[in-house]
Amino acid sequence: MQGVQQGTRQPASPPAAYAPTDRTVPTRAAQRASYDKDLVHAILDEGYVCHLGFVRDGAPVVLPTLYARVGERLYVHGSTGSRPLRMTGQADPGLAVSLTVTHVDGLVLARSAFHHSINYRSVVVHGIAHRVTDPEEKRLALDALVDHVVPGRSRDSRPASAKEFAATSVIRLDLDEVSAKARTGGVNDEPEDLALPHWAGVVPLRKGYGTPLPDPGLKPGTELPDYLAAL
Amino acid sequence: MQGVQQGTRQPASPPAAYAPTDRTVPTRAAQRASYDKDLVHAILDEGYVCHLGFVRDGAPVVLPTLYARVGERLYVHGSTGSRPLRMTGQADPGLAVSLTVTHVDGLVLARSAFHHSINYRSVVVHGIAHRVTDPEEKRLALDALVDHVVPGRSRDSRPASAKEFAATSVIRLDLDEVSAKARTGGVNDEPEDLALPHWAGVVPLRKGYGTPLPDPGLKPGTELPDYLAAL
Repeated sequence: MQGVQQGTRQPASPPAAYAPTDRTVPTRAAQRASYDKDLVHAILDEGYVCHLGFVRDGAPVVLPTLYARVGERLYVHGSTGSRPLRMTGQADPGLAVSLTVTHVDGLVLARSAFHHSINYRSVVVHGIAHRVTDPEEKRLALDALVDHVVPGRSRDSRPASAKEFAATSVIRLDLDEVSAKARTGGVNDEPEDLALPHWAGVVPLRKGYGTPLPDPGLKPGTELPDYLAAL
Repeated sequence: MQGVQQGTRQPASPPAAYAPTDRTVPTRAAQRASYDKDLVHAILDEGYVCHLGFVRDGAPVVLPTLYARVGERLYVHGSTGSRPLRMTGQADPGLAVSLTVTHVDGLVLARSAFHHSINYRSVVVHGIAHRVTDPEEKRLALDALVDHVVPGRSRDSRPASAKEFAATSVIRLDLDEVSAKARTGGVNDEPEDLALPHWAGVVPLRKGYGTPLPDPGLKPGTELPDYLAAL
């Protein structure tokens, strides 16, 4: 069967890319755009804070919030009293959102001011966010939100009580209209600028974790768990 | 005169806070909100990548982009062909935007999943962005955008040519409807959870710079400038 598939060039699995749309094809620097699912997933999985945009009274609102990916769905949570979560309501048609995740990797310092840039990787998701009403999906999403920040943490904490569970809203956004954008590499100066005396190059940016600070009320003898020591 | 001012309690300078509006007063966690100008400026000046939201065909769009603050104005730039910059046009009424800057400072790991949180500082600006048409303001804004990423860099690079200057658009957003929001400190567990065996505390997040990577075409003998060595 493998030979047949190779011979007819039929894919063994669904296309591993999102279909571009008018909203996800950039008007410029199109070579930086990608619809590759693996790349999109990798960018999303490396972060846990997104910027969620929605429209309120005709004007845009952009708020930072935590997110988690489970397969081809993103989840965002918050208090039932918070604005975007109230706006999703319990029913359709949901809330039109744009969810963006950005990693800044380096400062690109060219000889010319014009060609200064940033190395970055970002994902922009467009779609309609819906309130999660199925209790099982909601609980899985809440675990994913904790584990997305610190893998393994949800199993090492007290699960939400019924009251806490009810006080939290979760919204779901399907990965459907999605694009990644990235700039990598070095400076792109004009040929006539190469002889200029200015230093040019890339300053990489680093992210990391500091030493964990135990809660002063921690029970004596409580050791730092392996999944935190490994960060 | 100083004595008179103190006696009548007249402020020596304008109020050092932005006036709250319906959009900048949160529906919850109001104790985390601040309108203090110094705090807002400090959060804005620590970053250089914002998330800019606008409305296109009735739907929200959130894009990462560079920004700089000059006094009570924010500047964002881009190609004249990019979507939000084209939408600002040359004339009023401008483009309604929400511009958000977020710093993530630490992971707050509580004993209960529900009380997990993030230490962060963010600023959300609402307003109408206008295209900068005055050439002098535009040039100052472009310098500020370079210096906001690396202080001192604009003086150590070739200024924009007339062609580059014309190919770049700059938009201005006044700091008027602005709020900061921050979470700091340790875990807030329920009293009945304190005896649970789970490790609890804060994992600080660190940001920094890696070793600058010189452009392979750098003129031999070009040394790393002090303002980069000091990063």
